[in-house]
Amino acid sequence: MLHFDTDYMEGAHPLIMQRLMETNLEQTVGYGSDHYTQDAKILIAEACGLENPFIEKGYSGDIHFLVGGTQTNSTVIDSLLMRHEGVLCAETAHINVHESGAIESCGHKVLTLPSHEGKVDASEVKAYIQHFYADETYEHMVAPGMLYISYPTEYGTLYSKAELSELHAICQEAEIPLYIDGARLGYGLASPACDITLSDLPDLCDVFYIGGTKVGALFGECVVAKQGLLKHFFPLIKQHGALLAKGRLQGVQFSTLFTDNLYLKIARHAIDMAMMLKDGFVSKGYKLFLDSPTNQQFFVLPNEIMDRLSKTCTFEIWGTRGEKETTVRFVTSWATKKEDVRALIKSL
Amino acid sequence: MLHFDTDYMEGAHPLIMQRLMETNLEQTVGYGSDHYTQDAKILIAEACGLENPFIEKGYSGDIHFLVGGTQTNSTVIDSLLMRHEGVLCAETAHINVHESGAIESCGHKVLTLPSHEGKVDASEVKAYIQHFYADETYEHMVAPGMLYISYPTEYGTLYSKAELSELHAICQEAEIPLYIDGARLGYGLASPACDITLSDLPDLCDVFYIGGTKVGALFGECVVAKQGLLKHFFPLIKQHGALLAKGRLQGVQFSTLFTDNLYLKIARHAIDMAMMLKDGFVSKGYKLFLDSPTNQQFFVLPNEIMDRLSKTCTFEIWGTRGEKETTVRFVTSWATKKEDVRALIKSL
Amino acid sequence: MLHFDTDYMEGAHPLIMQRLMETNLEQTVGYGSDHYTQDAKILIAEACGLENPFIEKGYSGDIHFLVGGTQTNSTVIDSLLMRHEGVLCAETAHINVHESGAIESCGHKVLTLPSHEGKVDASEVKAYIQHFYADETYEHMVAPGMLYISYPTEYGTLYSKAELSELHAICQEAEIPLYIDGARLGYGLASPACDITLSDLPDLCDVFYIGGTKVGALFGECVVAKQGLLKHFFPLIKQHGALLAKGRLQGVQFSTLFTDNLYLKIARHAIDMAMMLKDGFVSKGYKLFLDSPTNQQFFVLPNEIMDRLSKTCTFEIWGTRGEKETTVRFVTSWATKKEDVRALIKSL
Amino acid sequence: MLHFDTDYMEGAHPLIMQRLMETNLEQTVGYGSDHYTQDAKILIAEACGLENPFIEKGYSGDIHFLVGGTQTNSTVIDSLLMRHEGVLCAETAHINVHESGAIESCGHKVLTLPSHEGKVDASEVKAYIQHFYADETYEHMVAPGMLYISYPTEYGTLYSKAELSELHAICQEAEIPLYIDGARLGYGLASPACDITLSDLPDLCDVFYIGGTKVGALFGECVVAKQGLLKHFFPLIKQHGALLAKGRLQGVQFSTLFTDNLYLKIARHAIDMAMMLKDGFVSKGYKLFLDSPTNQQFFVLPNEIMDRLSKTCTFEIWGTRGEKETTVRFVTSWATKKEDVRALIKSL
Repeated sequence: MLHFDTDYMEGAHPLIMQRLMETNLEQTVGYGSDHYTQDAKILIAEACGLENPFIEKGYSGDIHFLVGGTQTNSTVIDSLLMRHEGVLCAETAHINVHESGAIESCGHKVLTLPSHEGKVDASEVKAYIQHFYADETYEHMVAPGMLYISYPTEYGTLYSKAELSELHAICQEAEIPLYIDGARLGYGLASPACDITLSDLPDLCDVFYIGGTKVGALFGECVVAKQGLLKHFFPLIKQHGALLAKGRLQGVQFSTLFTDNLYLKIARHAIDMAMMLKDGFVSKGYKLFLDSPTNQQFFVLPNEIMDRLSKTCTFEIWGTRGEKETTVRFVTSWATKKEDVRALIKSL
Repeated sequence: MLHFDTDYMEGAHPLIMQRLMETNLEQTVGYGSDHYTQDAKILIAEACGLENPFIEKGYSGDIHFLVGGTQTNSTVIDSLLMRHEGVLCAETAHINVHESGAIESCGHKVLTLPSHEGKVDASEVKAYIQHFYADETYEHMVAPGMLYISYPTEYGTLYSKAELSELHAICQEAEIPLYIDGARLGYGLASPACDITLSDLPDLCDVFYIGGTKVGALFGECVVAKQGLLKHFFPLIKQHGALLAKGRLQGVQFSTLFTDNLYLKIARHAIDMAMMLKDGFVSKGYKLFLDSPTNQQFFVLPNEIMDRLSKTCTFEIWGTRGEKETTVRFVTSWATKKEDVRALIKSL
Repeated sequence: MLHFDTDYMEGAHPLIMQRLMETNLEQTVGYGSDHYTQDAKILIAEACGLENPFIEKGYSGDIHFLVGGTQTNSTVIDSLLMRHEGVLCAETAHINVHESGAIESCGHKVLTLPSHEGKVDASEVKAYIQHFYADETYEHMVAPGMLYISYPTEYGTLYSKAELSELHAICQEAEIPLYIDGARLGYGLASPACDITLSDLPDLCDVFYIGGTKVGALFGECVVAKQGLLKHFFPLIKQHGALLAKGRLQGVQFSTLFTDNLYLKIARHAIDMAMMLKDGFVSKGYKLFLDSPTNQQFFVLPNEIMDRLSKTCTFEIWGTRGEKETTVRFVTSWATKKEDVRALIKSL
Repeated sequence: MLHFDTDYMEGAHPLIMQRLMETNLEQTVGYGSDHYTQDAKILIAEACGLENPFIEKGYSGDIHFLVGGTQTNSTVIDSLLMRHEGVLCAETAHINVHESGAIESCGHKVLTLPSHEGKVDASEVKAYIQHFYADETYEHMVAPGMLYISYPTEYGTLYSKAELSELHAICQEAEIPLYIDGARLGYGLASPACDITLSDLPDLCDVFYIGGTKVGALFGECVVAKQGLLKHFFPLIKQHGALLAKGRLQGVQFSTLFTDNLYLKIARHAIDMAMMLKDGFVSKGYKLFLDSPTNQQFFVLPNEIMDRLSKTCTFEIWGTRGEKETTVRFVTSWATKKEDVRALIKSL
C-alpha cells in the first residue's frame, strides 16, 4: 500500500532522531530554559535575518516553541486579540474549519472572508474593515482585531511577495497585526513558485510560525513575533497547556533543522516529489482541482478511478464524495520515496 | 421630529407602569421567588397551552425571566450546547452579527447558513448536518449542536407553521434542540401573515423566549423551555449576570402583559401602524427592500430622498449608505402614534 | 410579618418612580446615547468632584451604566485583567462566593486573601504580591492583576480613608488597578463611621461603582473609571449581556438619585434604622457577630430565640444553622419603616 | 554538577528511544488511529485489569493519550464539569497553583480544601459538600462538581487504599466523579508505602491518568476513564490543542512502557534512589520537611548549608527562601544514577 494521505505519517528526519539519541540522557532544566532551546532560537533568528543586538539578547521574549499547530494558533490569537475583537481569515482557514472551535473556546469570533483557492483577497480585507467602521452599529459587532493567513494555504497555494506586502500594509493602516500560520512553511519556501525567503517574513507580517511537525520534526512549532508584541506569552503558553516540560526536545529538533539549511533542503525534496506526482496525474489526463505549487496536490477524479486507486494507495477525500467525481488530495513530505511516487503514477 | 428608529424608544405600556407604581413599596423576596413572578409564570404557561399538572407545579424549572435579549441568547445557548458543539443560524442572525461576540465569549462557535430574507432554509439545514457527518474529519470540526432562528427574523419575516414544523422535525431527527429568539415575538404573532399561535410554540420548538423589552415592557424576556431541558439554569443565569435582584419587576410586567391578552393587543397596534406605513411608502412609489409582514419595514430609498426625510424623521440605515440608493429600516411599536405615521407619509 | 432579609425587597424610591412615569412615553435613542443618561453622567461626575474639562467632554468613556452587580463585577474585571492575571480579594468577597463563578466563567482566577470581617489587610496584600514574584516558578502561577474590595464589605464593615490610601499605594506600586465594588456604596458613605466622601473615591482607587439596585433604584449600577482605563468598554458591556436597550431608564434613575443629594439622604435613613435596630438587639442583651456601622447588622442568636423571631419576622441565616447558636443578618434599606424597626425590637 | 531539580531532566528511557528509532520511517495514519496506539491501549487496559469484552472493543472511547499534564487536567476537568460547577481539590493542588489558571481559563472555579501534606481529608470533603447544600443561597455559589486529587501528591505523599475508598464513596454519594492526577503515578505505585496496584485504580476512582512525561517517556499522559464518562472527548482534546498529529508517538512510548512491566520497574529505581537520598540526609542529621515515601524528598536546610550545597548540586527551593532555614526539594527519576546520589550524600 502506498500512502499519500498527509505529511505527518512518518516520525522525524533521521538527523533529528540521531541528535535526540545523542542528547537523550543529558540533564537539562525544563520549560525551554535549556541551552538547546537557546541554540535553536539563535539559529532561527539568524535564518530569519533578525539583527545582531537582538540575537545577543537571546530572544527570550520573541521566539517561542509550542507543540502543535492548533494550540499555536489558539495561543497566539488569544494573546493578540482584545476581548471585543475577532480574527479575520478565509472561510477555508484551518482555524475556521478544522480546529474543533479552539479559537471560539478562548472566547474569540472567527470572522470569515471569501476564500480564493485558500487565499484572502486584499481588497476584500480592506473593504471588510471599511464597512465595519462605516456601520453605525459597529460597537455591537465583533471588531476585526487581526488577520490570519496560512502560507502555504490549506489548498497548497501561495501568496506572492506583493500580495503579502499589500495585506501587511492594510493591516498596518488598520493597526491590527498580521499573523501567518506556517504549519507547512518549509513547503512554501521551497516551492519554485515562492518569491520570498524566510528572512523576508519578519518584515512581511507581525507574527508567524515555522512548522516543524509537518516538515521533519517529531512535533513542534516555532513562533517568531515582533519584539514585545506577545506580552506575557510564557504564562499564556502554560495556561493553554502548550508548554512542554522537556522543552529541550524542541530545542534539539529545531537546532538540527536550522543547521546546514536542513529545513529547506528536506522541504525541497517534498516539492520535487509533489511536482513529479502532479505531472504524473496531468500526463495521464486527470483534472487538477487547482494548480498547487506546494506539497499538497488536488485532483478531481471520476469515482470509479478513485475507487480503483484506493485499493493500492491511501489519500484523502477532500470534503465529501461527489455523485460522479470526487476531489481528492495527495500529499508528499520530506520522507516521501521517489519509488512510491513512481509506483503511484504507474498505477494510474 | 418623528422617530421610527426602533421599537425600544419609549418606556413601558401605561398599564405596566401603573402596576409597578401600585406594587412599588411592597416587600418581596428576591431573585424571582416572589408571588408576582409565580403569577406571571402561571399566566404564561396558560397562554402557551401548557398542561394543568405542569401549571400546578409552578414551572420553576421551565419558565425563566431574564433582563435583555443578548444575555438571554447567550445564557440559553450556553446551557444547551456541549463544548464541542456550535449553534447553527442564518448568517444574518442577531447572535452572529449584533451581539458583540457574546456567544463566542462563552466558548461556542456560531455556524452560519445562508440567509433568505433572514430565514434559514430547511433543506440547507438538513444538508449542513448531513455533510458534516459525511466528512471523515468531522471530529476535528465544530458539531452542529442546536438550531437558532428568530421569529420574526431580523428582517421582519416570518416562518410559516409548515416551515417551523419541518425545521423542528430535522432537529429532532438530528437530536439537537431548536431555539426560537422571540425578541419581537408579539409582532410576529400579531401579524396577519402569521399562521401560528403562542400555544403552538411549545410543540414547534424546544425553547423559545417571549420578548418583553420591545413589546410593552421596560425590559425583560421570558424563556419557555421543554421540561428538564435547561439543566441547572438558575445558577447559569446568575453566572451570566442575568439574574435581577428585584425579580418581581419582571413578574409584575409579564403578569400585566399576559392579563386580558394585553401582549397581543398592543402588538397588533404596532402591526397596524407598520402596514399603514408600508402602504404609504408603496403608494408613493418607493421600493420595498423586502415585503415584511411585521413591525420592521425596509425600503430602498434614493439617497436624496433619504437625506431629505432625515431632516424631519429618524430611522435606521441598514448596513452602510449606498452610492445612489440606501436601504433603510422604519420600525413601529406598541407606542407608535397614528398621527406620527400620517405625518411621515405626508412628508414622503 | 416584618421583613429584614435584605435591601432589595422594595421597588424604587417614589421620586424615581415619578420621573419614570413622567418620561415614560418620550422617545429616546437606545443604549445610553440619550440625554437622560448624559445628564446623569454629568451629575455623577460633579458629585465625584471630577474636573470641568472632563465634564464638558461628557465622560462617554469613563462613566457607564450597567444593570446589576454581578454583571458589573464580571464586566469590569474582565476588562481590567490580562489573560494570565487573576483578581485579588478577601475570601469572603462577593465575587468569590456569591456570583456562581461569573469571574471564572470569563476565564479569570479569583485569588483569595484572608478576610478580616470582610476586609483585606494591606500588609497581607503586599506580602502576597512580594511572595508571588519571589517565587521562582511565578510564571507558572496566576499573577495578581488587580485588587477587588467592597465598600461596605459583605459584612457591613468599612475601610478607613487611611486604609484605602494604603491599599491604593500598594496597588500603584505593583502597577495594578484597585477596584471598589460599591453595591451598597451609599450605605457606606452615609455611615457615621465613614471618613471619606464620594469625591474622594476617584483618588482612592482606579475604578468603582455606585450601587443603585440596593440604594433606591429599581436596578442599575454606575461604573466610574479613571479616564482611558476601561478600553473598548462599550462592546464589552454588550458582549456581557449587560447593555440595556432602554438605557435612559438608568439615566432617569441616576439623575434623580444625584439631584438634591437624594442618594445620600435616603442612604442615611437606612443607617439610622440600622443603628436603632442594633441598639435594640444590644440593649436586650443579644450578642453582636461583629460591630457593623452600616445597614447590614449581624447577631449571634440562640436557636430558640431565632426560631421564635422567625414567626413574626424574616431575616437571613448567615451561612448555616449552628448547633446551639446561629449567626443571622438583619438588613435595613432606604425604605425601612421606623414602625417596623420598633415592632421588631419590641418582639425581641 | 549534580542535578536533583525535578524528574523531567532527561529524555526518554533507552528502550523507548530504540522503539522510536525502529519505527521512525514507518507510515501511519494520524491522531491516534494507528496500530501502535491501539496496541498501547490494549496493554494499558490489561495492566489496569479492565475486562476482556472491553479489551476486544478496543477502548477507543475510554483510553486517551494527551501530551502534557496541564493540558490533560484542563481537558478532563473541562469535560467532566457542567458550567455551574467547580472542581474541589487541596489548596496545594497543581491545578490550583502551578497551571497558570488553565482551569479558570476554561471557565471553571477551583474550590479549595485544606491541604494535609498535599492530601485532602475525607471528612473535610464531606463537610464541604454538606455545608454547600445546607446553605440557602447555594444556587448563587459554584457547586462542587468533582474531586481532584493527585497520587502521589505535589508533596510526594500517598493516599492509602482505605483513604481512596472513602473519598470515592463520598463522591459516589454526592454523584460527582473522582479524578486522580497521576503525573507521577509510577512513583506512587512503586513506593513501598503504596497499598494499591494499577488494577485497583479503575475501581477507586472515575478517571485517572498515567503520567508518562515524568516516568520514562519523552512526553505523554494516558487518561483512563469509566466507560462513557468522557463524552465527545476526541473533539475536546483537539479543541484544547492537546491532540498530537503523530499520535503513534504516544502509542510507541506507552506500549513500550507497558511491555514487560517496564513502567513499574523504572519507577522502582527512582524510589530506591529517593530512599537512599533521604537516608543520606537523615543520617547526616538534616531535618525532613515531611516524610515522603516517593521520589520527591523535602528537607528544611539551614541557609548556609543550602548555599554551600548549591555550588555542587541543583535542586528546587520550595516556595521562597526563609530567613534562616529554607525548605528544599530533591527529586529522583527513572534516570537517576546511583553514583550521583552517593556523591550528593558525600557532599552533605
